[in-house]
Amino acid sequence: MENTHAAVWDGLVVNARLATLAGDAGYGLVEDGALGWKDGRITYAGPRSRLPGAARAAEVVDADGRLLTPGLVDCHTHLVFGGDRAGEFEQRLQGASYEQIARAGGGIVSTVRATRAADEETLLAQSLPRARALLADGVTTVEIKSGYGLDLEGERRMLRVARRLGEVLGLQVRTTFLGAHALPPEFARSADAYIDAVCDWLPRLHGEGLVDAVDAFCERIGFDAAQTRRVFEAARTLGLPVKLHADQLSDGGGAALVAGFGGLSADHVEHTSAAGVRAMADAGTVAVLLPGAFHVLRETTLPPLEAFRAQGVAMAVATDCNPGTSPLQSLRLAMSLACTHFRLTPEEALRGTTVNGARALGLADRGRLQPGLRADLVLWNAEQPAELAYWLGGGLRAASWIGGRRAGD
Amino acid sequence: MENTHAAVWDGLVVNARLATLAGDAGYGLVEDGALGWKDGRITYAGPRSRLPGAARAAEVVDADGRLLTPGLVDCHTHLVFGGDRAGEFEQRLQGASYEQIARAGGGIVSTVRATRAADEETLLAQSLPRARALLADGVTTVEIKSGYGLDLEGERRMLRVARRLGEVLGLQVRTTFLGAHALPPEFARSADAYIDAVCDWLPRLHGEGLVDAVDAFCERIGFDAAQTRRVFEAARTLGLPVKLHADQLSDGGGAALVAGFGGLSADHVEHTSAAGVRAMADAGTVAVLLPGAFHVLRETTLPPLEAFRAQGVAMAVATDCNPGTSPLQSLRLAMSLACTHFRLTPEEALRGTTVNGARALGLADRGRLQPGLRADLVLWNAEQPAELAYWLGGGLRAASWIGGRRAGD
Ligand SMILES: [Zn+2]
Ligand SMILES: [Zn+2]
Repeated sequence: MENTHAAVWDGLVVNARLATLAGDAGYGLVEDGALGWKDGRITYAGPRSRLPGAARAAEVVDADGRLLTPGLVDCHTHLVFGGDRAGEFEQRLQGASYEQIARAGGGIVSTVRATRAADEETLLAQSLPRARALLADGVTTVEIKSGYGLDLEGERRMLRVARRLGEVLGLQVRTTFLGAHALPPEFARSADAYIDAVCDWLPRLHGEGLVDAVDAFCERIGFDAAQTRRVFEAARTLGLPVKLHADQLSDGGGAALVAGFGGLSADHVEHTSAAGVRAMADAGTVAVLLPGAFHVLRETTLPPLEAFRAQGVAMAVATDCNPGTSPLQSLRLAMSLACTHFRLTPEEALRGTTVNGARALGLADRGRLQPGLRADLVLWNAEQPAELAYWLGGGLRAASWIGGRRAGD
Repeated sequence: MENTHAAVWDGLVVNARLATLAGDAGYGLVEDGALGWKDGRITYAGPRSRLPGAARAAEVVDADGRLLTPGLVDCHTHLVFGGDRAGEFEQRLQGASYEQIARAGGGIVSTVRATRAADEETLLAQSLPRARALLADGVTTVEIKSGYGLDLEGERRMLRVARRLGEVLGLQVRTTFLGAHALPPEFARSADAYIDAVCDWLPRLHGEGLVDAVDAFCERIGFDAAQTRRVFEAARTLGLPVKLHADQLSDGGGAALVAGFGGLSADHVEHTSAAGVRAMADAGTVAVLLPGAFHVLRETTLPPLEAFRAQGVAMAVATDCNPGTSPLQSLRLAMSLACTHFRLTPEEALRGTTVNGARALGLADRGRLQPGLRADLVLWNAEQPAELAYWLGGGLRAASWIGGRRAGD
């Protein structure tokens, strides 16, 4: 009796082409596949012909031969912010220099100003369409960073809004405290004093349940290695995992630094050295590639992809959704940009937004279609996995499920 | 009495920021604007404060301060085709050369094969999602070319499907006969004989009401100037306007050739010479920029933008939606790519997809918000026109109207 009951699943997709991402290479394709789930977890993923005879489900979906993949994981975003920087985008294309824009009050400080000025409801309302756009294109888990408040109240508000986005949309949200994103005007003369403040805020925000990981911007125009290390030590004290904006514009040794802390990921990594790659490989630190910023900034230095491949560093791909350098609201488009600009294969791009994206967040319970993992799924109006990176734009998502629940639009 | 009746419009949008595109430069912005229409034509576009006192409408929409623009015009697409080329995209990224792909049956011939094999219903079903994606992103008029049938039956079927897409979606569709797109296998040894056939098909298809304009692919790997001229002469006999795939990969004098026929547009034009630009300026031929193919092919030679500006050649921007070099299903993304790759200003990008896009199709009745023009309108979840090119992805369209009728999704 109990056995029969166990075979009544919550959902079952049949007649699908599964891209399971099982194993270390290949899509793990299953033709004429079936996938069942119960209580939010996958119960079966394999050929329809080997589906247990007694399998029944409350909801059965005929995929009509279409592609079913793990839900996409966008492991690096700054999608909670006030205002936008379309005006600055326009000025730059009219010929204004970065300096002129900064003097006119533009750049990241304008986003800090707008974010500080926005109350929680306003910030939620402004961020919702971006989270919704990611969801509509196949994202089921999204990381969201703070870093435009740069004071305790502002950082808290951003992280609270991030959590609320998850509740409102049914999205899986992982929050990252990025107090060390930029120096706020009130600390303009003392980065070290600001880092003191950041290290003071972190345990408070963590105590409020708002922090899943800690990040910093380690760069000549950001914070130096010693300051970054202090933030990471504060994180370690709390048992929080770290990640880092590393080596985007220059080789600041950021990748090795975060790897030295056993960090989840080093992100951007365009200028990471061979030694940095080796340290990442040793530590199992994921390389998070952010082709949106590369595209918008018209960068030309590629991340050391061959070294990542040769040394077995896992590569993830994310939107970096932010108002300045990557106003990108589609993870599929990030995959496409990764293929076009970085020459990733479509398979690497899909691994980068599923299993490796999950790994960059320290999540081992998703990113593949395997029994026991979360039932985070996307059914696509596509037949081949390569289509996800091939089409630029287009409404490819047919349906998605997050923890076994059908996601809205 | 009649006067009162005339003031009852079919629709009225109030509290909108209008980007009218009136005049030759600037967005023609109207703050706190209103726009009314009746019988498919705009009756008023201006400040709400100067709205005629008696103005009433069957449907009134409060835009809540959001942006209202002319409906977007995608003036160059190949969106009707069978199959896709995602497999080829993947092979290329796995290191296969164009030659290897061609030997394996890939390239345009594979699309010709798939298009010939698809019956009309199949072709319609495969093309519908692409047309729907363009509509969902703000397109109200779309040009669709033939050119993957390359025989009378196949070209006819493509053009019929193009017409049907317009009927099914309520989109404005302009068809272009592009028989001279590529040499079909059965004519592999005689391009001239194939051009004879094209010139024979054209009057027949035109007689069936399927052809609004005529195009050709003038390139070393396409047709030469003499062959192109024969196609254009056949078009002239029928009073049909011409346009041309010109100077994309090399300077073949295509821009001057089509300008010499008083052509509507020269498209691609990356390698157009100064003489070509001058001929376009003299003839009023529009330069249609196609940044999707430029992006996908990772081209580096920019179109002669400064020369176009200096000589007053109108620039349009289009998706070039096609399965090989531009699988692009978003005209806003084409605008963004034009800004990033070609350094167009957001204003030039918007002119390029409204008034100049319309001009590239010979349509003077749309592309601006002015009384008497068609009520083709898009209301955006945006405040500034620059946002349309700034955001990469995202669900920016709030609503659109085509000839005064609310468009579906
Ligand atoms: Zn970032
Ligand atoms: Zn074309």
